[in-house]
Amino acid sequence: MQSDAHRVVVVGGGFGGLFAARTLRRAPVQVTLVDRLNHHLFQPLLYQVATGILSEGEIAPPIRNVLRRQRNLEVELAEVQEFDLERRSVTAARPDGRRFRIPYDSLIVAAGAGQSYFGHDEFSRWAPGMKTINDALELRGRILGAFEMAELEPDAGKRREWLTFAVVGGGPTGVEIAGQIAELSRKVLNDDFREIDPASARVMLFDGGEKVLASFGDRLSDKAARGLERLGVEQHMSSIVTDIDRTGVVVKSGGEEKRFPARTKVWAAGVQASPLARLLAEASGAETDRAGRIAVQSDCTIPSHPEVFAIGDMMSLDGLPGVAEVAMQQGIHASSTIKRRLKGRETSGFRYRDLGSMATISKFRAVVSFKGIRLSGFLGWCAWLFVHLAFLTGFKNRLTTVLGWTMAFIGNGRPERTFTVQQVLSRVAIEQAGGRPFLLSLSGEDDPTEGGEIPRE
Amino acid sequence: MQSDAHRVVVVGGGFGGLFAARTLRRAPVQVTLVDRLNHHLFQPLLYQVATGILSEGEIAPPIRNVLRRQRNLEVELAEVQEFDLERRSVTAARPDGRRFRIPYDSLIVAAGAGQSYFGHDEFSRWAPGMKTINDALELRGRILGAFEMAELEPDAGKRREWLTFAVVGGGPTGVEIAGQIAELSRKVLNDDFREIDPASARVMLFDGGEKVLASFGDRLSDKAARGLERLGVEQHMSSIVTDIDRTGVVVKSGGEEKRFPARTKVWAAGVQASPLARLLAEASGAETDRAGRIAVQSDCTIPSHPEVFAIGDMMSLDGLPGVAEVAMQQGIHASSTIKRRLKGRETSGFRYRDLGSMATISKFRAVVSFKGIRLSGFLGWCAWLFVHLAFLTGFKNRLTTVLGWTMAFIGNGRPERTFTVQQVLSRVAIEQAGGRPFLLSLSGEDDPTEGGEIPRE
Repeated sequence: MQSDAHRVVVVGGGFGGLFAARTLRRAPVQVTLVDRLNHHLFQPLLYQVATGILSEGEIAPPIRNVLRRQRNLEVELAEVQEFDLERRSVTAARPDGRRFRIPYDSLIVAAGAGQSYFGHDEFSRWAPGMKTINDALELRGRILGAFEMAELEPDAGKRREWLTFAVVGGGPTGVEIAGQIAELSRKVLNDDFREIDPASARVMLFDGGEKVLASFGDRLSDKAARGLERLGVEQHMSSIVTDIDRTGVVVKSGGEEKRFPARTKVWAAGVQASPLARLLAEASGAETDRAGRIAVQSDCTIPSHPEVFAIGDMMSLDGLPGVAEVAMQQGIHASSTIKRRLKGRETSGFRYRDLGSMATISKFRAVVSFKGIRLSGFLGWCAWLFVHLAFLTGFKNRLTTVLGWTMAFIGNGRPERTFTVQQVLSRVAIEQAGGRPFLLSLSGEDDPTEGGEIPRE
Repeated sequence: MQSDAHRVVVVGGGFGGLFAARTLRRAPVQVTLVDRLNHHLFQPLLYQVATGILSEGEIAPPIRNVLRRQRNLEVELAEVQEFDLERRSVTAARPDGRRFRIPYDSLIVAAGAGQSYFGHDEFSRWAPGMKTINDALELRGRILGAFEMAELEPDAGKRREWLTFAVVGGGPTGVEIAGQIAELSRKVLNDDFREIDPASARVMLFDGGEKVLASFGDRLSDKAARGLERLGVEQHMSSIVTDIDRTGVVVKSGGEEKRFPARTKVWAAGVQASPLARLLAEASGAETDRAGRIAVQSDCTIPSHPEVFAIGDMMSLDGLPGVAEVAMQQGIHASSTIKRRLKGRETSGFRYRDLGSMATISKFRAVVSFKGIRLSGFLGWCAWLFVHLAFLTGFKNRLTTVLGWTMAFIGNGRPERTFTVQQVLSRVAIEQAGGRPFLLSLSGEDDPTEGGEIPRE
């Protein structure tokens, strides 16, 4: 590494940040990737961790391990808290709270988005989102725990509540988790209980729109709806969830409000950009939209700062969807732009190539939309399998993942059904820690003697 | 199931409880197995979960899934809190706190043992034990997190502290976790860091005795010591740990006290029987020993109550060691005794057949003591592999476990390196919840409206 090399700081180790970093692997630059978690997350398979098919390690490899061969890069476990666009530096906090500055020549911010409860953050306690490994493991404990509670419950009405699952949001995540909860209850747990029939579980899917997977087009959307119906998932469309509490959800549909008792709720409805989007917008005069995303220019940079890129779920541009594919392509675009500038070449705006979208409905059934080609059923599932395996390629866990799938889809097994005190208590613990979903202190407590800013060597 | 069948209640789903339940599978009895966790735990491989080789699901299958084919048995997720030996019933609490009574004709209590800090429970905050999945996942976060903190630390002295690991206890668990931390640092993490050299990590093993693995005999004990030395594990024998705090341990050796700075500590020293042992002793007039174990009679029953068995790590009998093999054989013995009584046959005292013991030192190296035969090195490791695979047989995860081992031992990979907020915060959360390591509430909070005793249907 040259000490006078162009310094690129990448914020976030998701799809955007990872592809941005990789694109710079042979460039004459020094890259620092900062993330507040130790792992990248293959979010499209998070629902499989929540329902016991995969372990967390299989979809969340350590960022530094994925990028270990890239010698011009280092990874720091820290939370970026401030930008100083004039001095060209970011301020980050280590897990023990100590802050340090990282100077940059180019900055790529790819901090993603979290769950949005549309102004009703109090719902989160009862309806975890589907954005992090923590969310998935907590949902695993809640979903499998609900069957345990039902088995113990002598009162028929309460047993019914425990055997009712409500999923809010009819996009791919909502459809996939609803489908998997149904499969779990119908095909996996049959022999395990004595007092209850797990197959009698009620799985409800709520969405404000007219159809599930609306973005996939009418034909695939209808196929998905029929697939879910066959699994016994109740689809409540044109239904707005207006309240969620400990024992149920309240839904408004056609001017009427109705209460559905349900102990287990999953929120897969909205997204809210990382707070870093607003910080960048305030510092640069850019706009943010209702979801908190920063409006970027056609080349993904922010106004007056051609050296600062905002990419992926935290930015808005030409109505691009918040999907992994956009983040990856923008990561490549941002790093390519930096490389071209270093060579004195011309740069251009970002152009998105839509490679399509896909969602699994049940085992061996998926819907896939790819460049006008639309597949469903078993053929769709084969395409789903192929693409997901291809994207997992970079990681070590492809083999164990395939084995997990074989056991889950052919053997009806769920190899990862363990749940722990950690999973059930985590939300409470995070709330008590002030709501900051950060690692806080790896030594088990905050250390006040170590506060304050430290110099960077 | 006959409603007038002999009712057997089994408390605990560890090795003792599981083998007791299985032994009754064709008996004309109705079995209820109660455990406060949803999973059995293959404790001998816990150190592999802590160091990223295996996922939690691979060593902790759901109890009800393992026993799903046994139609005369049901599993309840509840915590046994009281025994009424006169009325022949136990009182258990569900995860939401509601209590219920379970009547029995025969009772097998196999509640195991937890970690003992020899009167220094305040050490637990700084030195997690190795008894539960929670412990292992927390240690995973601390061990891997220590390298992350070292990478961020500009001060050389503090970086040294983060790269120092102290393991207390030179039995199989301590030897195995110390060996794995050393392998992790020497062989796995080499390429992942930029500022630190993970291989420079210092791993210390403290024990009050003269040798590691003292119970294995001199020859194997010496082999193990040499194996650990080759890995670079410092063995501090005849050393008593007198204090543990955030940044180090204090050790007394030869009349002198010395402080060793070390950020990451693992406690693998002592065990304390489940509090249920004392409850049973008080109710029956039996003795308990210093480790809280109840002294049972030669057939594993308690005084004046031939229908009540106490087995495994929570009982003491003829100086039997606290190992899985004793618990398994006693589980089989207790259930066989119940079956013989139902047939009017004679019963006998418990006789332990010592099948030997084993411990891995590093990859491809283990020490095995089996009926006078003593193996070490690669041959010992083959025996270790064979026996562990044989014991995992009952579980679905044998195939993925072998694959995990292949990747870990041949490829130097660690497929499960993900750690989360849950893992880092769990000990604090459990403390704040009053120190009760129970699931508390699967609905995310305690529900005061649901307190009190409920009738059993």
